[in-house]
Amino acid sequence: MVYYTALGSYEPILRIADGDTVLTTTVSYDGRDASDQQVTPGGTNPLTGPFYVEDAKPGDTLAIHFDKLWPSRRLGRSFTVLAPNVVDPRYVREMPPRHPGLVAEWELDLKNGTATLIKPDTMLGQLTLPLKPMLGCFGVAPPNGQAISSATSGAYGGNMDYNGFVTGVTVYFPVFVSGGLLFLGDGHALQGDGEIAGSGIEVSFDVRFTVKLLKDKKINWPRAENEEYILTIGNARPLDQALQHATTEMVKWLQEDFALDARTIHILLGQCVEYDVGNVFDPAYTMVCKLNKTLLPSKK
Amino acid sequence: MVYYTALGSYEPILRIADGDTVLTTTVSYDGRDASDQQVTPGGTNPLTGPFYVEDAKPGDTLAIHFDKLWPSRRLGRSFTVLAPNVVDPRYVREMPPRHPGLVAEWELDLKNGTATLIKPDTMLGQLTLPLKPMLGCFGVAPPNGQAISSATSGAYGGNMDYNGFVTGVTVYFPVFVSGGLLFLGDGHALQGDGEIAGSGIEVSFDVRFTVKLLKDKKINWPRAENEEYILTIGNARPLDQALQHATTEMVKWLQEDFALDARTIHILLGQCVEYDVGNVFDPAYTMVCKLNKTLLPSKK
Amino acid sequence: MVYYTALGSYEPILRIADGDTVLTTTVSYDGRDASDQQVTPGGTNPLTGPFYVEDAKPGDTLAIHFDKLWPSRRLGRSFTVLAPNVVDPRYVREMPPRHPGLVAEWELDLKNGTATLIKPDTMLGQLTLPLKPMLGCFGVAPPNGQAISSATSGAYGGNMDYNGFVTGVTVYFPVFVSGGLLFLGDGHALQGDGEIAGSGIEVSFDVRFTVKLLKDKKINWPRAENEEYILTIGNARPLDQALQHATTEMVKWLQEDFALDARTIHILLGQCVEYDVGNVFDPAYTMVCKLNKTLLPSKK
Amino acid sequence: MVYYTALGSYEPILRIADGDTVLTTTVSYDGRDASDQQVTPGGTNPLTGPFYVEDAKPGDTLAIHFDKLWPSRRLGRSFTVLAPNVVDPRYVREMPPRHPGLVAEWELDLKNGTATLIKPDTMLGQLTLPLKPMLGCFGVAPPNGQAISSATSGAYGGNMDYNGFVTGVTVYFPVFVSGGLLFLGDGHALQGDGEIAGSGIEVSFDVRFTVKLLKDKKINWPRAENEEYILTIGNARPLDQALQHATTEMVKWLQEDFALDARTIHILLGQCVEYDVGNVFDPAYTMVCKLNKTLLPSKK
Repeated sequence: MVYYTALGSYEPILRIADGDTVLTTTVSYDGRDASDQQVTPGGTNPLTGPFYVEDAKPGDTLAIHFDKLWPSRRLGRSFTVLAPNVVDPRYVREMPPRHPGLVAEWELDLKNGTATLIKPDTMLGQLTLPLKPMLGCFGVAPPNGQAISSATSGAYGGNMDYNGFVTGVTVYFPVFVSGGLLFLGDGHALQGDGEIAGSGIEVSFDVRFTVKLLKDKKINWPRAENEEYILTIGNARPLDQALQHATTEMVKWLQEDFALDARTIHILLGQCVEYDVGNVFDPAYTMVCKLNKTLLPSKK
Repeated sequence: MVYYTALGSYEPILRIADGDTVLTTTVSYDGRDASDQQVTPGGTNPLTGPFYVEDAKPGDTLAIHFDKLWPSRRLGRSFTVLAPNVVDPRYVREMPPRHPGLVAEWELDLKNGTATLIKPDTMLGQLTLPLKPMLGCFGVAPPNGQAISSATSGAYGGNMDYNGFVTGVTVYFPVFVSGGLLFLGDGHALQGDGEIAGSGIEVSFDVRFTVKLLKDKKINWPRAENEEYILTIGNARPLDQALQHATTEMVKWLQEDFALDARTIHILLGQCVEYDVGNVFDPAYTMVCKLNKTLLPSKK
Repeated sequence: MVYYTALGSYEPILRIADGDTVLTTTVSYDGRDASDQQVTPGGTNPLTGPFYVEDAKPGDTLAIHFDKLWPSRRLGRSFTVLAPNVVDPRYVREMPPRHPGLVAEWELDLKNGTATLIKPDTMLGQLTLPLKPMLGCFGVAPPNGQAISSATSGAYGGNMDYNGFVTGVTVYFPVFVSGGLLFLGDGHALQGDGEIAGSGIEVSFDVRFTVKLLKDKKINWPRAENEEYILTIGNARPLDQALQHATTEMVKWLQEDFALDARTIHILLGQCVEYDVGNVFDPAYTMVCKLNKTLLPSKK
Repeated sequence: MVYYTALGSYEPILRIADGDTVLTTTVSYDGRDASDQQVTPGGTNPLTGPFYVEDAKPGDTLAIHFDKLWPSRRLGRSFTVLAPNVVDPRYVREMPPRHPGLVAEWELDLKNGTATLIKPDTMLGQLTLPLKPMLGCFGVAPPNGQAISSATSGAYGGNMDYNGFVTGVTVYFPVFVSGGLLFLGDGHALQGDGEIAGSGIEVSFDVRFTVKLLKDKKINWPRAENEEYILTIGNARPLDQALQHATTEMVKWLQEDFALDARTIHILLGQCVEYDVGNVFDPAYTMVCKLNKTLLPSKK
């Protein structure tokens, strides 16, 4: 099986249709599968896909509902040093040395939903954390014949590393090419905000998702919703620019789908908007703009 | 009574001591008091203070516990247009016109803790939101003889506009000058993340706070704690740099007060850190780095 | 003839070898040729190429010497409104309206080397400027199977829009794929620093260039030299990050090729470095780091 | 004599009037005078001043012409390691160690106008560079009762560290307080672009300047002119924002003083603007926007 390390207009591995549910698997960022076997070169988020969605055309929107995201093996790995770009430049010299081979290992209890640090020893004693399984990198083929590394992100999605992309969330992407061409990978058993150590707890995943095709529905940046919130995602550097993209997309969403005028939207967002920080590690940073659904009128 | 619009080494209005509790009031950003009377020129956060804390010296830390933060009048005001720096540059042309005189008005129900938009009419019908009273601007005199506008922020605090600074929170500031010289103001009945419309629901406040002096305790950026979290605050532009300051200060806090080694801290923060966005409107932006207290060992 | 609007691993249009000189042409950003005929869809810098350089392998460096860069027609076009991202966000509302169809037209005197504004009328009377013909977008195929839009730039080159890339300059690119795969386009008869109106004076070009292959010579970012300077180029946002890339690459160049130790380099650059601003309009900004050749020891 | 390390509304050391020429001296950043004696605590640019200009009122503009800027002693000092914020975060770990006490020393030949590195030894042999004496930090008292450290900069000037501020240049500042209150200091015998090692060749200076008061002339950011150019200066982080301030101020200058319409200005700047990088070391970065005087119509 082939895993791509870029999102582009590659040969589909499966053709699916509006409403279809897909069960698939992803390898961890380092190319290891559910048996922890190296099945593809690692290091840059090998992705499963692309999935071609019948009848998806540029100008449509593709909705991906995550029915279930769950680790498929008991061993997860994470990096052990913060990225030099998330700390004060003057502090970088004081950081612990970075041994490329040194990774932390976590034992995942997939039944009870916990991760326990088994290596290296730390001063915290036994560290057990609740799982919050998420996909770090997924999206569609970008426009204009491009193929863009799964290390970064953009309007087409990609490596957003947002820990809110969990089971139950629906994510919307603009369709830029025929079939949309959906890719998924880079599962994290859990991850702190920002992915500031350069990794979550990296592990292979079982994924069940359902696609829906919204014809003639144009969006500019990824959107999402969960039970509580509608969300928009901006990917850029600096974080200020990612926030600008996400905020502007939220304004447009409220204008288009909820028929609110600009004045209403500006007043509402001013006092009610929330932001989450996606990754601040990858070439493009990710900011998430959120609005609680209780504040929304019914859709027009 | 004099209200300063800069944090600097001004004549104290009161001398207080370690452990003292102070009841005071603040005017709203526009210089209006609890009777909505203009008592001082407005527009740039007139501040109450400075309070001189006996025995506070450079190299100490001043802890401010907010015993109670609550609006002192029933009329709040907010701006009605998003700041041009929080949206895509290309979208700025499409924004609703900005009338300097046009502010939204909110009726505050101080007993039940709600704010209801009374002007202008919006497409949302009656909009009633729960209060979450906070102070937007507070801090100490900066070092080096400086006096810095209450419109911005830095290592000394200032206009951070973080909606997590509510009743029950303790905030720690580095002491840069004798007495520390504490200032407070810019109360918001509630505020969305980022203060993206350039204001919260601005109102005068009643404030009760208790100071504690930590002798010979040196910190570099504001720190805080509430029941659930310890927090560090970075103020700078771009947001990336604010995040660097806050993250580095969190690393140092864990090293100094919890006697954790760097490797433990990096692993812990990598998978457990959380970020909140303070303001993205003022000259300096604010990022808050958080760690859940359940993850901490007991203090050394 | 096909023109690509992304730099990627496409079928070469010509195979050339170390030392070869190539005469070719480029269309203007809008897909128009030397007869001002639309020969390919425009708007995103259609590029000539790719040229496959025999024996070029990842880990080598490709040197492109511009023997001659010159406009091939007498009509150039430029945009007439500054980009909203180069002015204060609050000023954007005051800018002149943007009519997508409205472009300025310039009459190029290719013999005497001048451009004269012929449309629209301005308050400057006749505006005649000396030509400084440059290529805005050129580079090699990026690594990892990527194909990246000719609207942006990176370590592989791309849309750098630096007005120092003129006749007589040699530019060095890292080779990421077999053959290197060189692309060129987006000629400007002249351009202000930063390309702040979103265009230079856009025109088709005649190009004569000579390639040289530096085997087993690894660089990280584009480098260049002209008679006076050695130059390194960083592409990223914000400009601060582009400057970091360019400065670091200059340090490494001086270490590797001139056998200077780090201390010497830091002292030298501190008092002698120069910077030029490339584009501040495209998705990635460009900063150029320069050192005068008179300051260099002979190559090791 | 007192030297301030902040620009604020301090007691004037001299009252001068429109047209007056002043001969004065400045100490080097480390508080040393022409005899290399420590006369004031150093480290943060002790400044000479303030000079009160009779009749200067908020809303006026103060013009400072540098008749002569020249080092007043033969020993200059510079730092020997690049600032960690001007290189790639990953490169910081590789930089030479930073010994706070280690500074380079330069012998200044004040007659022939050269600086020769005398310590430490480098791999360059004898390094002799032409002097280009400039002031790094000067400006007026900021508005609103503020006093801001001479380590940073803003609309009032301050620590801009632009190597174009040399003899013969006229710099214009907005007047924010009565008398304007001019400060000067931080002389550099020469300095690379960006002040990327955190210093120029730091030395005490003899300064002769002439002030001119432009009544009822309001500007927003520092402006300047030399024989060839008009210049505007933006101070902020990131560099992108400094560029926005400088560019917007240039647009306004051309509108107000040269009576050009917006369309003319945008077309002209698009193809003719030039940028210089001021400091990229201090808390606020500095970008300079330039337009060649040959392109200007006569003043209205």
